[in-house]
Amino acid sequence: MTDALAPGAIIGILGGGQLGRMLSVAASRLGLRCHIFEPGAAPPAGHVADHVTTAPYEDEAALRAFGESVDVITYEFENVPTSALDLLESLAPIRPGRNALATSQDRLDEKNFLESIGLPVAPFAAVDSLEDLEAAVAELGTPSILKSRRFGYDGKGQVRLASPDDAPGAIESLAGAPAILEGFVDFDLEISVIAARSTSGQTACFDPGHNVHVDGILRTTTIPAPIDEAVSSAAVEAATKVIDALDYVGVIGVELFVTANGLIVNEFAPRVHNSGHWTQNGCVVDQFEQHVRAVAGWTLGDPVRHNDVVMENLIGDQIDSISTVAQDPNVAVHAYGKADTKPGRKMGHINRVVPN
Amino acid sequence: MTDALAPGAIIGILGGGQLGRMLSVAASRLGLRCHIFEPGAAPPAGHVADHVTTAPYEDEAALRAFGESVDVITYEFENVPTSALDLLESLAPIRPGRNALATSQDRLDEKNFLESIGLPVAPFAAVDSLEDLEAAVAELGTPSILKSRRFGYDGKGQVRLASPDDAPGAIESLAGAPAILEGFVDFDLEISVIAARSTSGQTACFDPGHNVHVDGILRTTTIPAPIDEAVSSAAVEAATKVIDALDYVGVIGVELFVTANGLIVNEFAPRVHNSGHWTQNGCVVDQFEQHVRAVAGWTLGDPVRHNDVVMENLIGDQIDSISTVAQDPNVAVHAYGKADTKPGRKMGHINRVVPN
Repeated sequence: MTDALAPGAIIGILGGGQLGRMLSVAASRLGLRCHIFEPGAAPPAGHVADHVTTAPYEDEAALRAFGESVDVITYEFENVPTSALDLLESLAPIRPGRNALATSQDRLDEKNFLESIGLPVAPFAAVDSLEDLEAAVAELGTPSILKSRRFGYDGKGQVRLASPDDAPGAIESLAGAPAILEGFVDFDLEISVIAARSTSGQTACFDPGHNVHVDGILRTTTIPAPIDEAVSSAAVEAATKVIDALDYVGVIGVELFVTANGLIVNEFAPRVHNSGHWTQNGCVVDQFEQHVRAVAGWTLGDPVRHNDVVMENLIGDQIDSISTVAQDPNVAVHAYGKADTKPGRKMGHINRVVPN
Repeated sequence: MTDALAPGAIIGILGGGQLGRMLSVAASRLGLRCHIFEPGAAPPAGHVADHVTTAPYEDEAALRAFGESVDVITYEFENVPTSALDLLESLAPIRPGRNALATSQDRLDEKNFLESIGLPVAPFAAVDSLEDLEAAVAELGTPSILKSRRFGYDGKGQVRLASPDDAPGAIESLAGAPAILEGFVDFDLEISVIAARSTSGQTACFDPGHNVHVDGILRTTTIPAPIDEAVSSAAVEAATKVIDALDYVGVIGVELFVTANGLIVNEFAPRVHNSGHWTQNGCVVDQFEQHVRAVAGWTLGDPVRHNDVVMENLIGDQIDSISTVAQDPNVAVHAYGKADTKPGRKMGHINRVVPN
């Protein structure tokens, strides 16, 4: 690879949360430095990054200085404003590319893309008005779920419809935001594949994990997922199809539903993913280093798993137990260094390692 | 533990080299922040630490500000000036304590201490003059090795005597520094034990590794070492004796020679140790996190090893191969981010993981 970043090079990361924090740590192992761009004060990634710019995404001068100081730009969240990318793209390569980012930013575009490459998705319909929603409910039935097309995460911007009577309230709760209605999927479990693709098109997928959500927030990921080898292979194949079609560079998290009739792709996030945190204690190269390797133009690491792992998020005041839970000999703790503990906030995670 | 540091607390680290760098990364996993005090510019630890003070150890104002900003103080090298410790000790706890540091700073004190707790050491004699040396050579014979009592590392400050005729040249090369002569030890191999002790006196030892030096610099550490279970247990017992006798808090590296007549303790370093880098890819809790846990008043992690590992240092321009060697699926790379590559300088290391 002629374009591999050499030790000392600087990776710019948009967003300074826990994902940026763990990306910075991984970059340090490769001798690379990180420059974080983050509007919020005291970002968790700032504790371990070489440099931090604190400025809003609308601050063109700050963005320009950031873009000129780095060798490549990546991001830890998918809702990066388009205007910031417009400015940055002439200053350094943005990886993963804008195509992947744009597709993932809009649930309607995402669903259309997944269908276009032959992957099964839940039945869906675009909803811009109560009339649209009523027509969609007539077509897809209830229960179904209304989701804003943009800016959703951790279950935010989603309303479940138990009956057609729920339509007016659901529309109102989204306050005019463009949305889609998704039909009910009767799934056995949710799994995810953390996939990676290098600048040269090499791909590598970690083993699928089984995700359990509570109140819309990921609670645990268990590796291996309780699925057949054939289902596992199909999931890896689907994720590979997504990253190849997007000409993707970096790590992606692809969520899938396992149903009696096969796999359904739920959504993907063009970044390192909460359900991939288990790789920190299960693999020689974890998802964070894998992402850094990809965006730095390095060869990918081997995704082979050396241990079984159960990842548990520490939500809100669960973080207070961290020095106690650290006494368990098979537990690796990962705290995010967030200044304030709030209910529902991801404060850290633990990986329970089950030696093979 | 009533005195366990809570997430957000700050660990002060004297020294900003690769050990401080990897300590900072480990601290981040526990939600702790690090403040590095380092005289040299652009310290490797600075890339991943929350805060860096660049000042000489003689700068009392800088030391005071540093000491007042942190919750506990530790160090990555044993030659911290006494005057700095005198100033700092009233500001925050220093862990490991001054007793351990002072003992390890002087080879004569170290040997006397080891003998005093019943551990076998190489025959030795204090040498302050040519007359002393000639008397010591007459007693211990040749080959033997003259070592400065203080400030030695990586084979520096050491002269081998092949015959009594080498005495004048050896004394001259040490330029008047207080020294000791060590008698020849006919050893089969060198091993080391990375041991840890908590504030409550809990101890934990990682498995002994087999160290190979070239030109006085550690080249490889192989785990497990090719030794009998009885030898391994004896080595762990010796290391435990050292840390208990020192009322030690933190990680220590204890080097031992395996001879036909049993173990001989060579020396110890009151800090994380190059021969413990394998733990990053062999254990749930590595030596860096273990040290941070200890100095932060946490319970120690389990030192159980999940994989066999061969650690190889990347010396000088060997670092240039890092993105190539990273293509080996069982290799984890660790680069130190040093600005300048120099012959003999430790620039990084790799851990070759051999799954059990």
